[in-house]
Amino acid sequence: MNMQTKFAGMEVGYDVPALPGMSVGEIQTPCLILDLDALERNIKKMGDYAKAHNMRHRAHGKMHKSVDVLKLQMEQGGAIGVCCQKVSEAEVFARAGIKDILVSNQVRDPAKIDRAARMPKINDGRVIVCVDDVANIVDLSAAAQKHGTTLDVFVEIDCGAGRCGVTTTEAVVEIAKAAAAAPNLRFLGLQAYQGAMQHMDDYDARKAKLDAAIAQVTDAVEALKKEGLEPEIVSGGGTGSYYFESNSGIYNELQCGSYAFMDADYGRIRDENGKRIDQGEWENALFILTSVMSHAKADKAICDAGLKAQSVDSGLPFIYGRDDVKYIKCSDEHGVIEDLNGVLKVNEKLKLVPGHCDPTCNVHDWYVGVRNGKVETLWPVSARGKAY
Amino acid sequence: MNMQTKFAGMEVGYDVPALPGMSVGEIQTPCLILDLDALERNIKKMGDYAKAHNMRHRAHGKMHKSVDVLKLQMEQGGAIGVCCQKVSEAEVFARAGIKDILVSNQVRDPAKIDRAARMPKINDGRVIVCVDDVANIVDLSAAAQKHGTTLDVFVEIDCGAGRCGVTTTEAVVEIAKAAAAAPNLRFLGLQAYQGAMQHMDDYDARKAKLDAAIAQVTDAVEALKKEGLEPEIVSGGGTGSYYFESNSGIYNELQCGSYAFMDADYGRIRDENGKRIDQGEWENALFILTSVMSHAKADKAICDAGLKAQSVDSGLPFIYGRDDVKYIKCSDEHGVIEDLNGVLKVNEKLKLVPGHCDPTCNVHDWYVGVRNGKVETLWPVSARGKAY
Repeated sequence: MNMQTKFAGMEVGYDVPALPGMSVGEIQTPCLILDLDALERNIKKMGDYAKAHNMRHRAHGKMHKSVDVLKLQMEQGGAIGVCCQKVSEAEVFARAGIKDILVSNQVRDPAKIDRAARMPKINDGRVIVCVDDVANIVDLSAAAQKHGTTLDVFVEIDCGAGRCGVTTTEAVVEIAKAAAAAPNLRFLGLQAYQGAMQHMDDYDARKAKLDAAIAQVTDAVEALKKEGLEPEIVSGGGTGSYYFESNSGIYNELQCGSYAFMDADYGRIRDENGKRIDQGEWENALFILTSVMSHAKADKAICDAGLKAQSVDSGLPFIYGRDDVKYIKCSDEHGVIEDLNGVLKVNEKLKLVPGHCDPTCNVHDWYVGVRNGKVETLWPVSARGKAY
Repeated sequence: MNMQTKFAGMEVGYDVPALPGMSVGEIQTPCLILDLDALERNIKKMGDYAKAHNMRHRAHGKMHKSVDVLKLQMEQGGAIGVCCQKVSEAEVFARAGIKDILVSNQVRDPAKIDRAARMPKINDGRVIVCVDDVANIVDLSAAAQKHGTTLDVFVEIDCGAGRCGVTTTEAVVEIAKAAAAAPNLRFLGLQAYQGAMQHMDDYDARKAKLDAAIAQVTDAVEALKKEGLEPEIVSGGGTGSYYFESNSGIYNELQCGSYAFMDADYGRIRDENGKRIDQGEWENALFILTSVMSHAKADKAICDAGLKAQSVDSGLPFIYGRDDVKYIKCSDEHGVIEDLNGVLKVNEKLKLVPGHCDPTCNVHDWYVGVRNGKVETLWPVSARGKAY
């Protein structure tokens, strides 16, 4: 056991899962670990892709909720800023000095509108919000006037996700006009993220959905041009679609998030050649480190990562690099691992690839950055809990 | 908007979702709210039941992870202490001065064993751990000797949950003997929680499972008596079974957790008369407060509580007190609400009953305690993130 037990006043096993310098075997589980080499390769690859295709990459911070990961995406991957989903999340990035922030969501609550309008004073830069209702323009404008700031506006198009966003070009134009005319607001562009196709396994099925989205967005852009309101930025794209947006001739900004960490549900989708995207396109960089804590039954090992260590909304995790054992059941505090040949030992550590990275990261306080079998760094999940 | 924006140095909307004195309409969403009247009635009811049946009630802290809720269970519900699932969680309760703590789980990692053995010095009371492998006894004993403490041991019986625990009476006796003989350990009793039947809807199906568990535990107790090792405590029971254990003549301690808050998955199970248990036996006291943030489509409202505000492992939430609208889909940051008659307005607040309370509480930092439409208190989710 490592004799050092404090890190910046925090106790290992209570406040933090590990200390820099520890071996992987000493890390307290369950916790999130990042393979820093794989993470950096993923980040550089997406950066190179965006650059080669003349796309801005606004990294999605709602996935990792980490100032440190974002800074890596900006420094090593050329990301131009961040998008995130909540005002409180955006404030974390604003306080960290990020100059270009998109709240890729509606801001309707009066207190949240007030905070969003104040935010350009915090980051001394650009803050963009999404709008899908002309009534919202009045409130945003009033708050920006009150704070003496300017808020940038993306009109959100629902191009297939079925959540927020307007569905007609007429509505897009109406809101854009209102934004352009409103004091202290600026109509900057369009939010058009097709969130419902990202996880479809089949490449051609994904392409068909994105082709429809591109047609819808193109129609809106053409109508806006006729009104003298050509959007400066058309933003969208995720890990399952970014090549479609990049080759569309209409989008100029990507919002990819999961590519950096990967997860089991994304890993299953297929590229153009029918190959899983976690077997070439992207590397698994995020894992839940877990330990076997009971093996009282010969054919089953029980590990310490259950529902409090991950979200199973998109399926169970898989055990990385092992085809002899299988994670088959998840309860609050336990994972049941099928171990038909009894190969696992108590206290043995396993790396789980979570089903869905975003809500899994959201239950942890720390990323343990690992390189060459050693803990190199601890990064806080800076915006964890920033849901409101 | 409430003009006070700070609470104990924390900012509303960033660090905390509300302030005492606010109306429910002013609470920043999504967040957890507790109906304090309903909570107190649930707590008193379980306390009265346990007392009438001569049972000790050790409240399960893994559900709420809250020192404040536990203290209410002890003060108003006669709970004798707490059980929880992780050493770090137990330390939260130990530091809060709780004198009787059960880690209802295996403790195998050397660092965790060391912390568990030190814990009686923190709470100046009793600390119990579960054991399902005789090899663990040696390690626990060595650590307790090192710290000059005594650890109490429950032998864990797997009476149907299929997770940790031994399945044969021979194994129970072997571990109990080893614990009784080991320096600085004390064999205190049995952990026998049937976790797999709690959520079965049908009362008779649950009873059949618990009858089998009781037979198994009785066999172990009889064998232990013959060895002069009669267990002082036989502990188990949950919200879906506590009446079976209480009338068994063999259990003397309950470990109920979810009864205090209720959730959608538990609410569906039926009592002896075929009635849902959330319609008489227990009241919904826990809600996710959410706001409508978009209604760009006539028949769908989008609310701000998605996967970052809850766990959907046991199904989607339902909207409390409303049969005209329905929560039909959950993504990372959004809930899609079917609103066929367009009755919902933007910024309207709704109370969601989460599918599964334990992992839902685990993603939040605060409980907002509400009474008579006003925020009365804010309680931290004290052990949130204490997973390792």
